[in-house]
Amino acid sequence: MTQGRFISFEGIDGSGKSTQAALLADQLRDLGHDVILTREPGGSVGAEEIRSLVLEGDPDRWSAETEILLFTAARRDHLERTILPALAAGKTVICDRFADSTRMYQGLSRGDLRSLVDQLHSLMIGREPDLTVLIDMDPSVGLARAKSRQTSEERFEDFGVGLQQQMRQGFLRLSKEFPERFVVINGVDDKEAVAGDVLSAVTPHLQKGLNA
Amino acid sequence: MTQGRFISFEGIDGSGKSTQAALLADQLRDLGHDVILTREPGGSVGAEEIRSLVLEGDPDRWSAETEILLFTAARRDHLERTILPALAAGKTVICDRFADSTRMYQGLSRGDLRSLVDQLHSLMIGREPDLTVLIDMDPSVGLARAKSRQTSEERFEDFGVGLQQQMRQGFLRLSKEFPERFVVINGVDDKEAVAGDVLSAVTPHLQKGLNA
Repeated sequence: MTQGRFISFEGIDGSGKSTQAALLADQLRDLGHDVILTREPGGSVGAEEIRSLVLEGDPDRWSAETEILLFTAARRDHLERTILPALAAGKTVICDRFADSTRMYQGLSRGDLRSLVDQLHSLMIGREPDLTVLIDMDPSVGLARAKSRQTSEERFEDFGVGLQQQMRQGFLRLSKEFPERFVVINGVDDKEAVAGDVLSAVTPHLQKGLNA
Repeated sequence: MTQGRFISFEGIDGSGKSTQAALLADQLRDLGHDVILTREPGGSVGAEEIRSLVLEGDPDRWSAETEILLFTAARRDHLERTILPALAAGKTVICDRFADSTRMYQGLSRGDLRSLVDQLHSLMIGREPDLTVLIDMDPSVGLARAKSRQTSEERFEDFGVGLQQQMRQGFLRLSKEFPERFVVINGVDDKEAVAGDVLSAVTPHLQKGLNA
């Protein structure tokens, strides 16, 4: 059995990354792939419980450092219980957000935390996606979309355009930091067009040798 | 304002460490100290919620690594919200278990995790107690005591005498690894006598210069 491929989606709020992750899952299933669609934080029973602990209640009740530890605990559980078993069974894993979101979001308020996030990642997670699809767009477009579907849990997404501009630039910097696994897709077009671009970008990576 | 002293209690189950922590708190209060008595896992609102997440439910629902991350998240919150503010206010903090318990308990089933525990501790906690009181006793005595007050939460304490022997030796090894902060007290006597021994051992450390 060959290892499956692990594909993450990243992007600012309202960029359509969750929609595109789901559309890629549908397209790959239509092509005969065995696909697991999952998300972070969450993606396993335990990780979803940790997600609730972090995202519900007063946004200030955890310090940035405690929050990073809780997200890393959730990610470890998700990796062990959902992602790695699926990859070992040869499935394609599509994950809405992974460690790059922690690199970005936890670094937003406290730039000095990026090093802590990286050290914790290499100590406790140690796995990157084989491919990361960054859905890129101007934040003013993304913000309008995000506001149209806001839920009580989306406190992380409750930023203004200025912060979203910083986030966009941050994700683009990450794409240059990890060029071997990032593909950047323009997310401004209608979703079917973007989905076509995503599939075109992903397909060569699925056909390449599997780096198990 | 001088920094207060941070004193932890460690020991195998049924050793009487919780009782002795409380008795020391009473004795120091009688002597005019401003004392906070706390415990791990827990000791702050957030940490108590993480405690429930870890200790309730199926014992196998978290891997050892995820459990270590959750305990470290709880400890970080406890340190930030309870311990450090109290020390900064000049109070004496007495804590029933601290990082030494993670060094021991998480290393019990998987000896290779000790290094991970230590790396995570130095990355995210970085603070040891000023003084650690190890209540030492033969496990056959401790086990009989522990069984007489078992609660549903005490799955960590549900070990036989053989494992408790290993734990006792493990705590004694830790006391030799950190001789500058450990005092070992024989816990077999009646609790008032042990409390007297604890107070005698602790008093010189309270009178020494405060290593703030």
